[in-house]
Amino acid sequence: MTTTASTINTLFSDRAQQVQSSFIRDILKAAGQSNMVSFAGGLPEPSLFPAQHLAKSAYRVLMNNGQQALQYTNTEGYMPLRRFIAERYLRQQKIPIDPEQVLITSGSQQALDLISKLFLDPGDEIIMERPSYLGAIQCFSQYSPVIKEVDLSEQGPNAEQLQELTQEGNIKFFYTIPNYQNPTGKRHGLSSRKETAAIIAQSETFIIEDDPYGEIRFDGEQLPTLHSLLPEQTILLGTFSKMIAPGLRIGWVIATPEIIRKLTVLKQASDLHSSHLDQQVLYDYLTHYDLEEHLQRVSNLYSKRRDIMLEAMKAYFPESVTYQIPEGGMFFWLEFGKQFNAMKLLEKSMKEGIIFVPGETFYASNPVFNTARFNFSNTEEDKMTQSLATLGDLIKKMERGDKPTIKWWPLP
Amino acid sequence: MTTTASTINTLFSDRAQQVQSSFIRDILKAAGQSNMVSFAGGLPEPSLFPAQHLAKSAYRVLMNNGQQALQYTNTEGYMPLRRFIAERYLRQQKIPIDPEQVLITSGSQQALDLISKLFLDPGDEIIMERPSYLGAIQCFSQYSPVIKEVDLSEQGPNAEQLQELTQEGNIKFFYTIPNYQNPTGKRHGLSSRKETAAIIAQSETFIIEDDPYGEIRFDGEQLPTLHSLLPEQTILLGTFSKMIAPGLRIGWVIATPEIIRKLTVLKQASDLHSSHLDQQVLYDYLTHYDLEEHLQRVSNLYSKRRDIMLEAMKAYFPESVTYQIPEGGMFFWLEFGKQFNAMKLLEKSMKEGIIFVPGETFYASNPVFNTARFNFSNTEEDKMTQSLATLGDLIKKMERGDKPTIKWWPLP
Repeated sequence: MTTTASTINTLFSDRAQQVQSSFIRDILKAAGQSNMVSFAGGLPEPSLFPAQHLAKSAYRVLMNNGQQALQYTNTEGYMPLRRFIAERYLRQQKIPIDPEQVLITSGSQQALDLISKLFLDPGDEIIMERPSYLGAIQCFSQYSPVIKEVDLSEQGPNAEQLQELTQEGNIKFFYTIPNYQNPTGKRHGLSSRKETAAIIAQSETFIIEDDPYGEIRFDGEQLPTLHSLLPEQTILLGTFSKMIAPGLRIGWVIATPEIIRKLTVLKQASDLHSSHLDQQVLYDYLTHYDLEEHLQRVSNLYSKRRDIMLEAMKAYFPESVTYQIPEGGMFFWLEFGKQFNAMKLLEKSMKEGIIFVPGETFYASNPVFNTARFNFSNTEEDKMTQSLATLGDLIKKMERGDKPTIKWWPLP
Repeated sequence: MTTTASTINTLFSDRAQQVQSSFIRDILKAAGQSNMVSFAGGLPEPSLFPAQHLAKSAYRVLMNNGQQALQYTNTEGYMPLRRFIAERYLRQQKIPIDPEQVLITSGSQQALDLISKLFLDPGDEIIMERPSYLGAIQCFSQYSPVIKEVDLSEQGPNAEQLQELTQEGNIKFFYTIPNYQNPTGKRHGLSSRKETAAIIAQSETFIIEDDPYGEIRFDGEQLPTLHSLLPEQTILLGTFSKMIAPGLRIGWVIATPEIIRKLTVLKQASDLHSSHLDQQVLYDYLTHYDLEEHLQRVSNLYSKRRDIMLEAMKAYFPESVTYQIPEGGMFFWLEFGKQFNAMKLLEKSMKEGIIFVPGETFYASNPVFNTARFNFSNTEEDKMTQSLATLGDLIKKMERGDKPTIKWWPLP
């Protein structure tokens, strides 16, 4: 028999049947091809990218050191960059990290994939916050785990649920985003962090601490990482994607030397190493220009946009829509009235050229339909206000139309 | 109970126990830290990297289009680069490829990982050439397949064995490197290619055609890809690593649109996309400078080094050492006398500051110990001759010492 379109499917792995394309990325792809006003992505504002500085860095690296930067390198990554990352944590978190504890990855997304490869056999149990990062749900799903969830409140993950789950079962890891979480924008408080660390310390499991937004802080003090509170049982993920530019795909993992060695072997089999050129260009940039000043510029603009979004929502959205004010990061998390369906709002708003992400996509199970994620980092100020006014009208109209009365009377 | 160094291992996946660090990369890492003369790696000659042209391209991209090149992009890759790759195949192989059939990957190594994710459940059967690329053995091993092997002769893979294996079982794919194979340097002849395509056409399986070296041709005509002979059942992998520079980690997959869509979803979960900057820089390079002229320079130098290695082996190696003259690529494959152990030769040669890779590492099972891979692309001409003379002496000494007689008499 010959392979035909109809028989190809029988050759695919179980995994390939399970993993679905990301709804967000499909929306974004559509948006990229049109003039939509998008609150949907988690994209940084491109005018903030230090393109001219990176141009000079790239030119310098290639002219002075091109033969090395264009050659294969070791899987762990470019040592001066690993050292820079380790030293910055020492300054900020006051705990020593050896450069050998730093693995450079192709963005944090690859870190999630390598960690899944290291820990997950089919049927293994993991814990995620509810709701959580869609890309993590999608990545873990490739390895067929059983995903348990803990609720996320304004203070942090529900400690009772976390305690119960970690005590009862064989949990491989607890995946958490303590700073300005995607999608909720929530930050775990200090006492929540200490409680989480204490619970995990009593268990035989790991924390995967994903921290892409920690440096995008508007208000409040910096808080300690879970890694600094429980280094032996925490794998910390960082990335330059939100700090500098995502097009470079350079992130990192901080873990014990034993775990780094294991992840390195898996990374070697996965892509040999991350772009050597991008690693050297980033390192040149970090040593020639002022990162802290750059981060201040990023935080200032995003903080301003958060304020504008906040003002517009106050002005135009009905009181039934509730939200917490994010103190950093890129997202507002909205809750609508109980019967409200955010996906239906999206259908209507797309006709007006406005997109966002309905919250249902961020739940590993039992989706909640009256929620939505709104990004504020990537929309110009004037478009933002105007579009949120339009959305406010749509929400109000839907609420009027969705009154329970219409459910009690049959349509003609 | 608390997690300690001794209990961590219990959390690792089955996969993590199976995958071993690459012996070659461990040797290379050691070599990189010393002044070894290395015939071990598969590294391109760095003085051939077009570093100045790439410096200009990087500067141009970042100054003129930095906001786009530094932003997230779609998973499939930068469309102008995908179009360039598709059009080049049309010119060279005379079959039309739609840009939608091109997926940009982080080197061919990632393509192998994505293909494994798409096809392999534990226990699935695949076929490899014997011997084959170590990085592929290592990558596939993450997914616990059963690896069947077909012998590789001067003409190509053994057709009878291939026929038998593809007819009897549920083979997911046949992985092959038809041009200047790693490690043997062998190229499949035209009639072998047609036979392979005919055998696979009668089966329900796929060809994974890995072609990193096809453009590094010294002698003979270009031959058709297996993909051009059997497009519906062949997934073709290409890379800029050997053509331009491996530090960029930019490769590609050519397949049917259905397979590309499936691979794209898996890539999205694995690293979102490959470096956008590197893709744009490469595209700028390809459209501003003459790739064919560059490839001619690469082939000329490697061809010269092959000749020098050949002359030195003729002059200094005993007649017991046999090899086929590679017509392209980067490697000689050596066979020693039956009782010879190449790993023992390596132990001795390392003391003289010379390294190469014993052939035993390239077998998925039943390793052959009297073989070795010698790379000629990355060693300067004068060092090459001198080091091969030293190796020739070591081989001759070992042969005298390894005479069967010593096995018949007990040592005192």
